[in-house]
Amino acid sequence: MAVYTEVSDEALAAFLTAYDIGRMVAFRGIAEGVENSNYSLRTTGGDFILTLYEKRVDPAELPWFLGLMDHLARHGIVCPRPVAARDGGALRPLCGRQAAITTFLPGVWPRRVRVEHCAPVGAALAALHLAGQGYAPTRANALGPAGWAPLLARCGDVTEAVQPGLGTELHAALDAILAAWPAGLPIGHIHADLFPDNVFFLEGALSGLIDFYFAATDILAYDVAVCLNAWCFEADGALNVTKARALLAGYGGVRALSAAERAALPVLCQGAAIRFLLTRLYDWVNTPPGALVTRKDPIEYLRRLRFHRAAPDEHAYGI
Amino acid sequence: MAVYTEVSDEALAAFLTAYDIGRMVAFRGIAEGVENSNYSLRTTGGDFILTLYEKRVDPAELPWFLGLMDHLARHGIVCPRPVAARDGGALRPLCGRQAAITTFLPGVWPRRVRVEHCAPVGAALAALHLAGQGYAPTRANALGPAGWAPLLARCGDVTEAVQPGLGTELHAALDAILAAWPAGLPIGHIHADLFPDNVFFLEGALSGLIDFYFAATDILAYDVAVCLNAWCFEADGALNVTKARALLAGYGGVRALSAAERAALPVLCQGAAIRFLLTRLYDWVNTPPGALVTRKDPIEYLRRLRFHRAAPDEHAYGI
Repeated sequence: MAVYTEVSDEALAAFLTAYDIGRMVAFRGIAEGVENSNYSLRTTGGDFILTLYEKRVDPAELPWFLGLMDHLARHGIVCPRPVAARDGGALRPLCGRQAAITTFLPGVWPRRVRVEHCAPVGAALAALHLAGQGYAPTRANALGPAGWAPLLARCGDVTEAVQPGLGTELHAALDAILAAWPAGLPIGHIHADLFPDNVFFLEGALSGLIDFYFAATDILAYDVAVCLNAWCFEADGALNVTKARALLAGYGGVRALSAAERAALPVLCQGAAIRFLLTRLYDWVNTPPGALVTRKDPIEYLRRLRFHRAAPDEHAYGI
Repeated sequence: MAVYTEVSDEALAAFLTAYDIGRMVAFRGIAEGVENSNYSLRTTGGDFILTLYEKRVDPAELPWFLGLMDHLARHGIVCPRPVAARDGGALRPLCGRQAAITTFLPGVWPRRVRVEHCAPVGAALAALHLAGQGYAPTRANALGPAGWAPLLARCGDVTEAVQPGLGTELHAALDAILAAWPAGLPIGHIHADLFPDNVFFLEGALSGLIDFYFAATDILAYDVAVCLNAWCFEADGALNVTKARALLAGYGGVRALSAAERAALPVLCQGAAIRFLLTRLYDWVNTPPGALVTRKDPIEYLRRLRFHRAAPDEHAYGI
């Protein structure tokens, strides 16, 4: 839950004068999202989300993210669309932060993943990959393979404190992952964080995707691996093969995975597991006790990582 | 900011079947309110607030609060109105809490109080007092004069730790307040917590009052004293007499304060100041470091208390 920057009613009213979306009607902080401050904003022109970008987001990268969202929205993906001010810009300062207004998406994210969520998520991810093809600018994945070893190094000694032997295990796993990391797989724009809280459903159908602020240009099948980690494991750490099969079938129905992409799934899934394990570990260690953010257990991803390391081939995922 | 109880989309969908307000469209936690969990809820029938009552609220008292809100809404006060389920009830269990759906109010609360807010607040408070007259059930004010000595006792030794001499000063002040506490002033239902974050404005006009969960049956003029404390002091601790005069004039234009009520303002203001000082002190001491609630500085109210103790009579408030 997150509202890091308090926006006064006066500052907001002044901000809105730059836009053609009418006058303020209601304005409430949203208790979701961990990276930025989000407000639900109603004006006489409709419903919007106001986002203030906090310190984890590089302001220089914001035009890329907003440009991608705008491109995707224009190409059939239901996602928040940046609202241009009268001067044509989608970004402007508010209360010491860069801020943007985006369209409001109806829907509710699934607190408990069911099998029937997984095929639509796979299909939406594939549609996103196809729709992203026409967006020319690229963004290196700061949390991709090249970022993992430095991240592990920054966790340092505390890794052992979280769980004895964890540091040794992670170093060995990371060495193996990087050695086996595939080259030559199809590249494109990936969401890179398509967890359940970033996918809305409405009356049983997927109604939108949100939170593109980890998006990057990287291996498309790696995005599938992120989703397998995020959607297809049960609370006890076991893969739900039915969910995995549904997710992959949903994806494949929109964009076919090549034989090489399928064969790479175990190592891509290992990479995705270690990526979330490492950022959770880093946050676990670095989140001050008084922070407004709930820390997520890194060990959950250690269990996934071990599963993926033991997977002999892509058939482990039900295909 | 507060969402203490996470409500799953499935639990909410099941809950909504008891109501005639259509199907779920959107559902977001609201990062405001410190006592209960609040969600912004949109259905095909409109916009609502879903509140889950947390541990500070006695479930046995909820019908009184909801009944008051319903009564006030039917008598011209713009406040959240409980939505009855098909069985006629406004309260039902959800995720282990009692929960209610109320109507959505447009408007934004003023982050910085300006003089022009004060007369409307006074007028709305007086209108609330008049509208409340027809609501027969009563509720003793747990945070009224009878509650202050026990509250101070529960703060105990830590009072001195917050500021040396504070305990002695508060005991002396409380003795004087209780000795001078007025008898025979008009009684009625009071809001008892009408701070700026509980008052919405829209395009310069007051658009609604929220958060009635401290409401009680007590001295009406004490509610005025709460508002003088909440709306009319500057950040440096000084009374803004222009704001106080505006608030009192706004009140008096709707319901005239008697000579006895006006004369009692200094001691009523002392009481209101010590009430918020004591609960803030208690929370300051008892809020765990990891809590999702921002602690409020109790000393701010020590400065107000001292001002009121030095006030020779009601003319100190600009009347």
